[in-house]
Amino acid sequence: MGTSVDTERLEEGCELLLDFEKLRKVTQCDEAVVPVAVQDADTKEVLIVAYVNQTALAYTLEHGVAAFWSTSRNELWVKGETSGDTLGIVEVRVNCEQNSLLYIVRPLGEGACHTKGPDGRSRSSCYYRRIKGGALEFVA
Amino acid sequence: MGTSVDTERLEEGCELLLDFEKLRKVTQCDEAVVPVAVQDADTKEVLIVAYVNQTALAYTLEHGVAAFWSTSRNELWVKGETSGDTLGIVEVRVNCEQNSLLYIVRPLGEGACHTKGPDGRSRSSCYYRRIKGGALEFVA
Repeated sequence: MGTSVDTERLEEGCELLLDFEKLRKVTQCDEAVVPVAVQDADTKEVLIVAYVNQTALAYTLEHGVAAFWSTSRNELWVKGETSGDTLGIVEVRVNCEQNSLLYIVRPLGEGACHTKGPDGRSRSSCYYRRIKGGALEFVA
Repeated sequence: MGTSVDTERLEEGCELLLDFEKLRKVTQCDEAVVPVAVQDADTKEVLIVAYVNQTALAYTLEHGVAAFWSTSRNELWVKGETSGDTLGIVEVRVNCEQNSLLYIVRPLGEGACHTKGPDGRSRSSCYYRRIKGGALEFVA
């Protein structure tokens, strides 16, 4: 999915085009990472699932803002540093088997998704479409 | 973490022992998978993060109960088939880049975690501990 036309189709379309190869690419980056689900502390909406290495977790805990590891750029990704859509950390939770995290956050910008909704603002969550009858439907 | 002593330490302890190697093992299984965050439709609690291949997603959509792919056993894992902790599906959402899923569910058993709380029942969520001062603290 390299071109903007493909990105448009993937992100704004109603075709189910699930990328089952991404996770292998994630683990082929130089750093060992765990998945992190990110949830809004107030609306309880699930905003993103991303990946975190030791460095990104340490940054998050120290600075109180959500940081991830960009597995494509192989660098620390402090959410909002470019977009302004910073996510303030309320709590970091760990699952039973200690192989995933949950960031509970307060969005300090417009939203959490890099895509824009019909109002031109960052969507609050990346999960703005549901699967219905084998296709995608935008959630009201 | 093979023995029950280690499992106890990992799941019921207050040491932060994050397993950064798990995700690589996940992607070394025979099937290509995407991560799925699972959220309670009513309490909005995030319950689990697990993995789904085409087969598990198809099963979930067809039967209306949360199914995952067990990447350790390399087989379909219909949540609750053994424990009774079935998760009824309300909605399946897809993220912007179509490389992760969100199951919005109604728990039909005791809880969603395979661990038991002090009351002897399955914990509702796997995220029952927060990171505090480099260690773990149980969430009230």
